[in-house]
Amino acid sequence: MANCYELYLVTDTDLCSREKLTETVEKAILGGVTLVQLREKDISSRAFYEEALALKKITEYYHVPLIINDRLDIMLAVEADGLHIGQSDIPAAVARRIMGENKILGLSAGNLEEARKAKADGADYIGVGAVFPTSTKKDAVWIGKKALREIKTQTTIPIVGIGGINAENIGQIYGSGIDGIAVVSAIMASKDPRSAAAALKEKVKYL
Amino acid sequence: MANCYELYLVTDTDLCSREKLTETVEKAILGGVTLVQLREKDISSRAFYEEALALKKITEYYHVPLIINDRLDIMLAVEADGLHIGQSDIPAAVARRIMGENKILGLSAGNLEEARKAKADGADYIGVGAVFPTSTKKDAVWIGKKALREIKTQTTIPIVGIGGINAENIGQIYGSGIDGIAVVSAIMASKDPRSAAAALKEKVKYL
Repeated sequence: MANCYELYLVTDTDLCSREKLTETVEKAILGGVTLVQLREKDISSRAFYEEALALKKITEYYHVPLIINDRLDIMLAVEADGLHIGQSDIPAAVARRIMGENKILGLSAGNLEEARKAKADGADYIGVGAVFPTSTKKDAVWIGKKALREIKTQTTIPIVGIGGINAENIGQIYGSGIDGIAVVSAIMASKDPRSAAAALKEKVKYL
Repeated sequence: MANCYELYLVTDTDLCSREKLTETVEKAILGGVTLVQLREKDISSRAFYEEALALKKITEYYHVPLIINDRLDIMLAVEADGLHIGQSDIPAAVARRIMGENKILGLSAGNLEEARKAKADGADYIGVGAVFPTSTKKDAVWIGKKALREIKTQTTIPIVGIGGINAENIGQIYGSGIDGIAVVSAIMASKDPRSAAAALKEKVKYL
């Protein structure tokens, strides 16, 4: 079965205008992105909903899963494929009760202990980071290849590395064994999202 | 059957600190509040969830319905009694599909046309306003007693007037026929929320 976590795109409308969001995501998918997470802050529920609906048309067309960050209501409203939540969102067990078993639940973890907890809390995959220093999450703690490998070997669900990963530094985590990488800036801030995604897609096989 | 919309409290943690929220709401209920709507903006989902859980303990204890503003996910997460949504929230029909028929759905309307649409969209009650100029919604259009009465006679569901209503000006909408008033500042900003609620409760019978 194809690994849908291989090249995981997280949107950011600070890096790419709202007007260009669907176009950017489509190009990224054509370049090889395997999953899209819609992340929005400081937006009305209606605008978030409309944006999610628009993105879903693209992701469905290309058979790429759409995950909503934080907002379970938006996920339910647009019938997206899943939800990604962190420490400042609703508790995982509560989200799972409402979502049911057939939707993807992703949780964030910053170390092995949190990864084990995420697995116990019912995660379908875990986003682990920050792998490298990142401009989008300035307060994150940087974890290395060794920690990624440890988390991957000590857990039994897909592990996605996130945080500052790009085509230049991805070589530093080759051999970590993780299932994929999640990127924001490397694609969203690129003038050529399709090529940016393709360049990463070439390299994720060495993880 | 008791009218749960008679004295409808909308919370505002700009007027009352988060630390004092549950205490203020409890006092307001003891003073006669018949329904509580939790409204929060610019708060993490986790903090909203925790606050809703804390409020639900109070509202359940006193058998007063708890309505969540905007966030259907929070409503589902704490199993609150209903949801109130406006024009910048997810569409009413989508909310109703997810909530089911047994939860209260409240919609906002600013005139008769919007009130009719709200009814058609499946509202259980309609919040109509702004009745008076209000500091909490500065861009609202002020509607009078005549319009309230018209909306009440032309619709068949409970009508709650909202916007700048207090114990001094409520006399201006006596005889409007509406089912209740929703207040924010008149109770949340009061040093004595119980007495403030009791003073309003004495007067809502003349609506």
